[in-house]
Amino acid sequence: MVTLKQIAEELGISITTVSKALKDYPDVSKKTRKLVRETASLLNYKPNAFAVNLRTKESKTIGLIIPEIVHHFFSSVIKGIISQAEKKGYLVITLQSNESYELEKKQIDLLLNKRVDGILISLANGTGDFKHLTEVAENDVPLVMFDKIAKVVKCSKVIIDDRKAAYKATEYLIKIGCKRIAHFRGPLLPQNSIDRFLGYKEALANYNIAYDSSLVYLLDKMSFEEGKFFAKKLIEDHKDVDGVFINTDLVAIGAIAEFNNQGIQIPEALNIVGFSNWFMSSVISPSLTTVDQPGFEMGKKAFKLLYKEIKDRKKNKTITFKKVVLDTDLILRDSTK
Amino acid sequence: MVTLKQIAEELGISITTVSKALKDYPDVSKKTRKLVRETASLLNYKPNAFAVNLRTKESKTIGLIIPEIVHHFFSSVIKGIISQAEKKGYLVITLQSNESYELEKKQIDLLLNKRVDGILISLANGTGDFKHLTEVAENDVPLVMFDKIAKVVKCSKVIIDDRKAAYKATEYLIKIGCKRIAHFRGPLLPQNSIDRFLGYKEALANYNIAYDSSLVYLLDKMSFEEGKFFAKKLIEDHKDVDGVFINTDLVAIGAIAEFNNQGIQIPEALNIVGFSNWFMSSVISPSLTTVDQPGFEMGKKAFKLLYKEIKDRKKNKTITFKKVVLDTDLILRDSTK
Repeated sequence: MVTLKQIAEELGISITTVSKALKDYPDVSKKTRKLVRETASLLNYKPNAFAVNLRTKESKTIGLIIPEIVHHFFSSVIKGIISQAEKKGYLVITLQSNESYELEKKQIDLLLNKRVDGILISLANGTGDFKHLTEVAENDVPLVMFDKIAKVVKCSKVIIDDRKAAYKATEYLIKIGCKRIAHFRGPLLPQNSIDRFLGYKEALANYNIAYDSSLVYLLDKMSFEEGKFFAKKLIEDHKDVDGVFINTDLVAIGAIAEFNNQGIQIPEALNIVGFSNWFMSSVISPSLTTVDQPGFEMGKKAFKLLYKEIKDRKKNKTITFKKVVLDTDLILRDSTK
Repeated sequence: MVTLKQIAEELGISITTVSKALKDYPDVSKKTRKLVRETASLLNYKPNAFAVNLRTKESKTIGLIIPEIVHHFFSSVIKGIISQAEKKGYLVITLQSNESYELEKKQIDLLLNKRVDGILISLANGTGDFKHLTEVAENDVPLVMFDKIAKVVKCSKVIIDDRKAAYKATEYLIKIGCKRIAHFRGPLLPQNSIDRFLGYKEALANYNIAYDSSLVYLLDKMSFEEGKFFAKKLIEDHKDVDGVFINTDLVAIGAIAEFNNQGIQIPEALNIVGFSNWFMSSVISPSLTTVDQPGFEMGKKAFKLLYKEIKDRKKNKTITFKKVVLDTDLILRDSTK
């Protein structure tokens, strides 16, 4: 590693002058500053990032906690965050909570100890207590939540209108003639699985279709296997079902695999709508009608909000939290009539 | 933020004693060390990570550069790296090169300036010059390459035997009776697309099937769309083709979509083998016979090698670079007879 001393010796000037020149202090002449910078570059000098952090009290690093990495939607979000952060000179530390509250809590602590400049988080399904997040605010560290958020935590948020999107998905099933519509819902905790369920229920009510709780299946892991399992159960329980609105694409893809196995004609006998628009949904057979959830855009927007808050805090501006709601589209494919 | 001074005042002892106690110096009595630690914990004291970095010359952070995040194989690798790093107290900064050499070079520089403790990289397809990687070694920063490596760079590596895996895939097509076997190959630069091509060629030679270069298609972006495009071209060019070995699953999935569109019977008229075993490959119709490439294991192993090198360098041990070759399996599904 090249040191300030070596640059000073090379030029026959003092270490202090070199140090000041590199920080662009005006009490060093322009000519000297230029010379020092050129020599530093020639010798491939790299400033000690640790010392710079200590002086500026910034790490130019942010933390990101997401439930799962091998996941089309979340990996799109990560890509959006990283691409935007890089543009602004920030690096991103990614952690995966595995849907575990305990791990998420530990990871928040890790990031605070690391003194990241801000934190982005999408909550684990297991998270029902939010003290670890209020601690972030207490440490004056900017926080932005996205996708799986907690309403009670005071911070900026980027979401979609899950209730409205689910309403539209269910309404579409009604409009194409479905009378008995089942719903595969997510676990009880994350807000988005509650909201998607409420959107489903609201659409039924608005079109005078009686709500039947036996048509709603509560899923836990939201996996391909669960999709297969509950598809089988649904057919056993309800011979008359003609439509299913499924909380997420991966589960819907599992359900379609099971319906295909059992020789059930999609969409003739059964219409299916998913949620998220995983790439996979466009290539399976039949392809899946689904709600397009803009992961890449969500990641970009979440970073932008965080960046603004970091800058505003440095300028001692008053912080006002924003809630950004991104638009969704219903993508029509072959799993519905 | 709680300071050492506040802890000192709380206990009526000097700041130096508090500082030494927290670093577990033996010249502070055991009793005092315990008392200081308890008080620090009670006051929710967090050491200044920047000062700790400066003192220990460690960031406990590593850098990871991969070509693409929204990608089943690479996201599995990231998951393997992050899970293993977290166990050892390391955080991971992830950057995406977008298959661009220029971006990759810039990112290596970013990570070196950041003073990460080590770097993990899978090369961009565009990378044909390796000066930026030899610079990592010159800066005494441990480097491990995985999947898309450069043979000439001196560092530890984790790969699969691409040539052997491709040989077995092609051999399987021959054994089930294929006589005219096409190959969709990757770009000219990354070693693994060369090796997969060589494995294909070697299998043909060993089974006395004449090599026909017009049956080999050179792909660029390795995308779903390219798969469709070259599937169409293949059928136009060669009416007699009965097998295709395709460099990666995403392309194979695109090709299957096109063959399905054109009403070509798979596997009766055409047998297809992919490479990587994306989750998607098991749910499309027909499901894809493919080489299983262990991404999660590769990520874990790559971090383990990096970790060992970090530790060995700290102890001034001699560093010997390792090359780890992970096993692959051919997964038989419905796209082959």
